[in-house]
Amino acid sequence: MERRRGAAARARAALTPAGAASMKNGMFRLKHLRIETLRERIIVIHRSAVAKGNLGFNPMDRARVIGADPQSGQRREVSGVLGFCSDTLIAEDEIGLTEDAFRDLGLPEGAPVSATLAVAPPSVDLVREKLRGGRLDRAAFDTILADVTRHRYSRVELAMFVMACAMRTLDLDELVDFTRAMIGTGSQVQFGPPPIVDKHCIGGIPGNRTTMIVVPILAALGLLVPKTSSRAITSPAGTADTMGMLAEVALGAARMRQVVERTGACIAWGGALELAPADDILITVERPMEMDTEAQMVASILAKKKSVGATHVLIDIPLGPSAKVRTLAEAERLGELFRSVSARIELRVDIEITDARAPIGRGIGPRLEALDVLAVLGREPQAPADLREKSLFLAARLLEISGKAAPAGGYHAAQAALESGAALRKFNEIVQAQGAREMPAAALFQTVVGAPADGRIRQIDNWEIGRVAKLAGAPANVAAGVRLLKTFGDVVARGEPLLEIHAESAAQLEFARAYAASHAGIVQYGF
Amino acid sequence: MERRRGAAARARAALTPAGAASMKNGMFRLKHLRIETLRERIIVIHRSAVAKGNLGFNPMDRARVIGADPQSGQRREVSGVLGFCSDTLIAEDEIGLTEDAFRDLGLPEGAPVSATLAVAPPSVDLVREKLRGGRLDRAAFDTILADVTRHRYSRVELAMFVMACAMRTLDLDELVDFTRAMIGTGSQVQFGPPPIVDKHCIGGIPGNRTTMIVVPILAALGLLVPKTSSRAITSPAGTADTMGMLAEVALGAARMRQVVERTGACIAWGGALELAPADDILITVERPMEMDTEAQMVASILAKKKSVGATHVLIDIPLGPSAKVRTLAEAERLGELFRSVSARIELRVDIEITDARAPIGRGIGPRLEALDVLAVLGREPQAPADLREKSLFLAARLLEISGKAAPAGGYHAAQAALESGAALRKFNEIVQAQGAREMPAAALFQTVVGAPADGRIRQIDNWEIGRVAKLAGAPANVAAGVRLLKTFGDVVARGEPLLEIHAESAAQLEFARAYAASHAGIVQYGF
Repeated sequence: MERRRGAAARARAALTPAGAASMKNGMFRLKHLRIETLRERIIVIHRSAVAKGNLGFNPMDRARVIGADPQSGQRREVSGVLGFCSDTLIAEDEIGLTEDAFRDLGLPEGAPVSATLAVAPPSVDLVREKLRGGRLDRAAFDTILADVTRHRYSRVELAMFVMACAMRTLDLDELVDFTRAMIGTGSQVQFGPPPIVDKHCIGGIPGNRTTMIVVPILAALGLLVPKTSSRAITSPAGTADTMGMLAEVALGAARMRQVVERTGACIAWGGALELAPADDILITVERPMEMDTEAQMVASILAKKKSVGATHVLIDIPLGPSAKVRTLAEAERLGELFRSVSARIELRVDIEITDARAPIGRGIGPRLEALDVLAVLGREPQAPADLREKSLFLAARLLEISGKAAPAGGYHAAQAALESGAALRKFNEIVQAQGAREMPAAALFQTVVGAPADGRIRQIDNWEIGRVAKLAGAPANVAAGVRLLKTFGDVVARGEPLLEIHAESAAQLEFARAYAASHAGIVQYGF
Repeated sequence: MERRRGAAARARAALTPAGAASMKNGMFRLKHLRIETLRERIIVIHRSAVAKGNLGFNPMDRARVIGADPQSGQRREVSGVLGFCSDTLIAEDEIGLTEDAFRDLGLPEGAPVSATLAVAPPSVDLVREKLRGGRLDRAAFDTILADVTRHRYSRVELAMFVMACAMRTLDLDELVDFTRAMIGTGSQVQFGPPPIVDKHCIGGIPGNRTTMIVVPILAALGLLVPKTSSRAITSPAGTADTMGMLAEVALGAARMRQVVERTGACIAWGGALELAPADDILITVERPMEMDTEAQMVASILAKKKSVGATHVLIDIPLGPSAKVRTLAEAERLGELFRSVSARIELRVDIEITDARAPIGRGIGPRLEALDVLAVLGREPQAPADLREKSLFLAARLLEISGKAAPAGGYHAAQAALESGAALRKFNEIVQAQGAREMPAAALFQTVVGAPADGRIRQIDNWEIGRVAKLAGAPANVAAGVRLLKTFGDVVARGEPLLEIHAESAAQLEFARAYAASHAGIVQYGF
């Protein structure tokens, strides 16, 4: 029954040069698809190219696109997950690559490329071993993180690694190896002689922009503070987003060094520095999982601090019913973990467990939070007291730890730096050195939500209020978010204005308002 | 510092009707993006729509698109994962939905829609509880699988559920509840009175198309066999792909009933029947994980059998060094699990552990496998003996189990049905009833790979040889694949033709050939 066309075909195959740009021979023209998918590389081919027998692929297969540099002739390749298209988006003889994949391949549009199936990197087997209860050593972590950093892991494989670290508790040796491997994936920046101080909050509390107040206080008192912060991934703002309202934050390593040399400090976006690039990738699946991934958190935080040469680090662990850490025992255990690992990598880490029954400050969203920071630094009478006091408290601890202030003398020193205007002057110096930016205008749409009940505010749900700000558009719409008109400890009457929502479109304003109005439990009252 | 535009904006917001097709108010035109992503819904918006403040979203946020049916005015919505586009693929005032999402929303292109952030379905919390070591009950499985079936889980959340079932062993009660919930997600088809027989192979062995031989033998002997099979997901062919070379396989429930009523059997694609649709979705992340997900396998197989009303089921567990199951103890434990669960759902299941040291049959890939099946049914002298013998053996067991043959009388009955031509006539009846299709032509390109060593073939790596077939283009290119010129037990001389690769393009032929030539361990020799 089988019709034999083998001999002729074999002859043809042998005669056809491998590089010929013929579709029938599996060669395609490269197309740049300007679609961003947050670091997942997607390779799009036309359904009819498969139907006509030019490529034997199925959606979600892992494929490799292969081409050659037109100048050097050097082989270039990139892997990704396949998507199929049945539209005019791409032609039958084209292969489309999304943003990251196109950039990594580094060939011009129209370049001749071929494609083949790709396998998962062998290090995924190490991840499976860990999931089955095995151990990972330094070499295993190095291999896994190198593949992660080169974007060789699919989103599902990234989830496997995150879950392996989350569910099978790493022992201390593994966690130290993980941390050292994480440091190894990134670049290192070294500043002057110790002490080099740093702080980090494990997050989850809206507002809470203490960094932008603590750093200028410390720098005003002569400490070296090369601070890097992150942008929001699932929160309504990260410190880098908020600082970005006032200054450039995407500094390269050289620019960051300049700023620190000139002013003694910086407040830069860590992502521009590639300090622990594996973490930037792992976090894209970690956050949506909302799992307790503390091993990864400890490793990535300490790796980043070590990578900027910090010698004294203060970790802020907010504790509250809607915070990441909800019991004191949990907070103390996490603190101990930070201390044990940091001791092994020669880094002094102190822990501060802080009150998180409500957001810190009044604004939630990049612009609104920046206004809070300016009010505290500017010593304005209506500046949020909780933000000022927490910042002074953290600054005090760092002054004492680093030996800059006598034991119990830190608060007084920090207060003096703030009240004298020295911290504001230092902040402005840092802003000028990084490159000042004009504060964006207020959002076009605003509305007020009233209190659903009488009472004294005893709790504000950090996650839920952050969600209102996100529905309003934060952080992508920088001026969008929430302003708390009342906060923890305030007494309100039913109907009294409770919070103000800012948005750039009527639809987003309404989504956020409806959510806030229908979730009365966001704010809890007691007497 | 804050400029107040609040009052005017509030007034405007109140005056703007929510349904107005104004981009500034967060309304967009719907666009159909003909991109398939294997059941993951992707919502694409233009980067500048966000930059201009029309939507406060980030890539990979989960979003909901909301519109109204133009006739009934009924609200329609669909959720998905966001992608950003900076191209002309979509305009600033458009929102693009990929194939599945567009179809599920069910609105015409150009329809006015709005978009908001969406949260994970609450049932993901149940999955997290399980990951932390909790238990799931029937209600929990029902809720989770209902959300999975409605495509509310992102790929990462699907991975979490699969891993929760894979890593935290489900106890028997949980597994029974999982199975019952799986049955509950799909439709049920009921055929005549018992016995209704069925078989299933847990997979992993290329070739191995026993179903297409066993089913006509059983039906020729008067048994009712409403068989459903799957298409390949990561293998070079599924039974539905191979059967699809000769007949229509995408039968709806009514069509399947007709075929079974007329012929006593069918060999249909299960995916067209939605028998356990949650499984069809879970499998899209399960396969790439390559984790031991036996709980899910047991639940989904038994659910599908129960859904077609089967009363007697034979499960084929291939055992071998490159099979899914690699030790006898493992095979027996898995068999016991099938038996325990099936007893609780009133289904008789028998287990057959079979030899899997090499593929079964000579062809790998839809067309080449179909040729093997036709050769066995047609009693051709060169028909693969291993495929014939295994099929007779499985048919024999089912004849005995169902009481159609006396104990130890099954093989003789099955052999008689095959040798008399009754099985071939029944097969042709089934093909005609389902709708006959013309066998596709042989692949355009073919090449032969020689043996790298002398010896007797003692093992062929099932996974690796499947990979060669996939590199050649199977199953998307139906005529592509591998033909084993020598197989288990054959003696070969170095350089003697070992396997033949079929492909539709020279590039794919070369990828497959190079892989086969450089992986000598695919075939192992002994004396």
